[in-house]
Amino acid sequence: MLTRLPFPKLSNALIEKARILLDRALGPSKLITGADACAAYSSDESDQEPAVPDIVVLASSPADIATALTIANDVGVPITPRGAGSGKSGGAVPVAGGIVLATSGLSNIIEIDREGLIAVVEPGVILADLHYAVEAENLFYPPDPNSVKMCALGGNIAENASGPRCFKYGPTRDYVLGLDVITMSGQTLAVGKRTVKGVTGYDVTSLLVGSEGTLAVTTRAVVKLIPKPESVATLLALFKNVGDAGNAVSAMVAARLRPRCIELLDSATLNAVRAKGVAVDEQADAMLLLEVDGAEVACENEMERIGNACTSAGALDVLAAQDAAQRERLWEARRMLSAATRAMARYKISEDVVVPRPQLPALLQSIEKISEKTGVRMLSYGHAGDGNLHVNLLWNEKEQTPHVEEALKQLFMSVISMRGTLSGEHGIGASKAAYLPLEQSADLIALQRQLKAVFDPKGLLNPGKIFPRIGHGSC
Amino acid sequence: MLTRLPFPKLSNALIEKARILLDRALGPSKLITGADACAAYSSDESDQEPAVPDIVVLASSPADIATALTIANDVGVPITPRGAGSGKSGGAVPVAGGIVLATSGLSNIIEIDREGLIAVVEPGVILADLHYAVEAENLFYPPDPNSVKMCALGGNIAENASGPRCFKYGPTRDYVLGLDVITMSGQTLAVGKRTVKGVTGYDVTSLLVGSEGTLAVTTRAVVKLIPKPESVATLLALFKNVGDAGNAVSAMVAARLRPRCIELLDSATLNAVRAKGVAVDEQADAMLLLEVDGAEVACENEMERIGNACTSAGALDVLAAQDAAQRERLWEARRMLSAATRAMARYKISEDVVVPRPQLPALLQSIEKISEKTGVRMLSYGHAGDGNLHVNLLWNEKEQTPHVEEALKQLFMSVISMRGTLSGEHGIGASKAAYLPLEQSADLIALQRQLKAVFDPKGLLNPGKIFPRIGHGSC
Repeated sequence: MLTRLPFPKLSNALIEKARILLDRALGPSKLITGADACAAYSSDESDQEPAVPDIVVLASSPADIATALTIANDVGVPITPRGAGSGKSGGAVPVAGGIVLATSGLSNIIEIDREGLIAVVEPGVILADLHYAVEAENLFYPPDPNSVKMCALGGNIAENASGPRCFKYGPTRDYVLGLDVITMSGQTLAVGKRTVKGVTGYDVTSLLVGSEGTLAVTTRAVVKLIPKPESVATLLALFKNVGDAGNAVSAMVAARLRPRCIELLDSATLNAVRAKGVAVDEQADAMLLLEVDGAEVACENEMERIGNACTSAGALDVLAAQDAAQRERLWEARRMLSAATRAMARYKISEDVVVPRPQLPALLQSIEKISEKTGVRMLSYGHAGDGNLHVNLLWNEKEQTPHVEEALKQLFMSVISMRGTLSGEHGIGASKAAYLPLEQSADLIALQRQLKAVFDPKGLLNPGKIFPRIGHGSC
Repeated sequence: MLTRLPFPKLSNALIEKARILLDRALGPSKLITGADACAAYSSDESDQEPAVPDIVVLASSPADIATALTIANDVGVPITPRGAGSGKSGGAVPVAGGIVLATSGLSNIIEIDREGLIAVVEPGVILADLHYAVEAENLFYPPDPNSVKMCALGGNIAENASGPRCFKYGPTRDYVLGLDVITMSGQTLAVGKRTVKGVTGYDVTSLLVGSEGTLAVTTRAVVKLIPKPESVATLLALFKNVGDAGNAVSAMVAARLRPRCIELLDSATLNAVRAKGVAVDEQADAMLLLEVDGAEVACENEMERIGNACTSAGALDVLAAQDAAQRERLWEARRMLSAATRAMARYKISEDVVVPRPQLPALLQSIEKISEKTGVRMLSYGHAGDGNLHVNLLWNEKEQTPHVEEALKQLFMSVISMRGTLSGEHGIGASKAAYLPLEQSADLIALQRQLKAVFDPKGLLNPGKIFPRIGHGSC
């Protein structure tokens, strides 16, 4: 969608060389070739333009991964790791062509240690499957991106995924204790630890988490679990405007309340919900969806105080779910948003900006102004407790594209001027690489390129991600 | 204490060149020279042999730090950053000579943002001062190393300090959102963010936290605050043996309890406490000190359940503090331990190992055996919830040193065999650098050396720390 520099086309001879070596090492059953068959690996859940890989490797073991990386490195062909393809910034899209390395074949939950409160998982494990497995043992793995039922742990780790519960529990990085990864040279590194605490050497684990598949490929992760909260309670509050909703959030923080989620829906989003036939008080132009967890007595107490904070901030209505079924219904409106907004227009970009929490009302005002000025429909919802908004830009005509780009740029500049950041959970990927210099200095970008070079000297692992291409922006 | 390879002596001409340039750039009031005056900067709170620097720079601004680093880099003289000198692994000891760069002159709390829940601090701020300042605003900064009254934030960040409250709240790294640092080339980098969430680029912030002053020097940190817990309650439980205490901890975890601290004192430590005149039930060979925090009603409920878990595990006695003064008395025994054990013998090494929590009783048994076999007195206390034990080796005669080294080595090998880690909070520093290859592969150590080289190509920033010197161990 944005103007992008094309990658040079890889020569057929190079691709053929890689194919022959992969075929010899892995056998034909683990390879997909041919544009039609490879097309299924050309896109993810972002607005990134699809790019069909030349070869897909279906890895089913760490040895397969080492083989694929070594061959790509030796031959000089780009290689892009892929989990479940649910990413929102084009991280799994092979923008430079070459090989896609699919890790969904490594999908075992190797261990759940109830006493030690850890799980050991392979990268292809679907997050919801890990949730079910650990919750059956009365344990809890908090990260909960919206794509929980389809996303894989490998991708969660690559993107440092989070979700609504991040407000209380933090993102994926807070739960990854150790990793087995393979680098481009085929070297296996065991980084991190199996203990909750440890300061031996540099925190290479945290460097790898959120590195968007550009440094190494995860073959195994040791994740921290916590005891499953005994009780959960959900509450929905409607407000006349986002200012009141923002004040309610501030009042909660001041009252030392710590709900696990504080989700905000703005006026445009509430209209989208109404359009789907959900009855929402017509006076309401903002909604908060709140959730607390913990011991039962503590939950009840906290819910009451959250209700009071909402009422004092001028809430039109506060509803508490009475049981699990009601709770599920309250979340329905929130979960359907991504799909519902996608259905609202032919084109959609879903942004993922973060500002310091107190700036959230100012950001929402700024979004309203940008939308008016550019004529691009924008609606926002997201994780108010974290200051993290999903801003959706919607349009129907290709001719509007320059206005959309202008709106995006103004949004990012507004976020940076509020000392925010370009991405809260989706990553920079291919979609936002050109904008990185808006937030980070040329020196910091240069340093990160050098860090990448330590792991991947030839720059063949997931190229075109995070960093602006030469000619893009200031770097 | 351990056999260490000597660093080559720096030539007088080189030192003199650095001194002249520093004097010209910073003025004589910011320099200390001469062995006597410099001796105050030769050691920290570890057992690392003192090393007197040739020059001490008393920085009072980021510009001073940039100047000192640039001159050290240009001339080719080692430079060792120093906060409050409270470290426990020799991180601030200038083992290679050269310059000590003291950052205690940068000691401002620049900002406390009540709404945004962040503080901006300089590296010389004493941790207790930050605690007082934020708690006065009803906010909370959880990390609480034992040295809280003397340690500085810069050192906390360098070592990724933690403390008893880490069990519930995590270590320093979990609270550092962004850093301004200066690298050896004098380049200032603003890394990280001011928001609680953000996935833009690599997590360079986490790489810097815990890097023991070997990558760059912090000039400013943005740290996350949380609302101050409304209420705190403390409980002490005595057990016949550490096995019962371990079972109590397991029962708490199984019951989904989440105290903020679970401190364990072993039999030898309880004897040390008794020797200091504190009355402790003679039947008791283990003690747990527990603390919960949160809303008052939740605290009461949690304390009761913790008490029940201890009783069910066979506790001899369970005492709850009735007020703040009693609470303080319960903690007295814990806080005096470091000093008390130091007074028990002429020589002491305080180790800081971590094992997966369920392995704690096995580790304590192993320590008993090692002590018997080597004849070295060993007593242990620490953070049972994290599986993090401070193992103290005590001896009076120099001739015992080989036995102490043998005991240490056996301790580390025992920890590694239980899939633990060499350091939970003190860092590797100079003291444990030779043992790093016991835990980490040659490949991982080589990779970390390359990461260091990105920041410090000449290897002049805090040399002799973390990594074994060539000739030490397998690397």
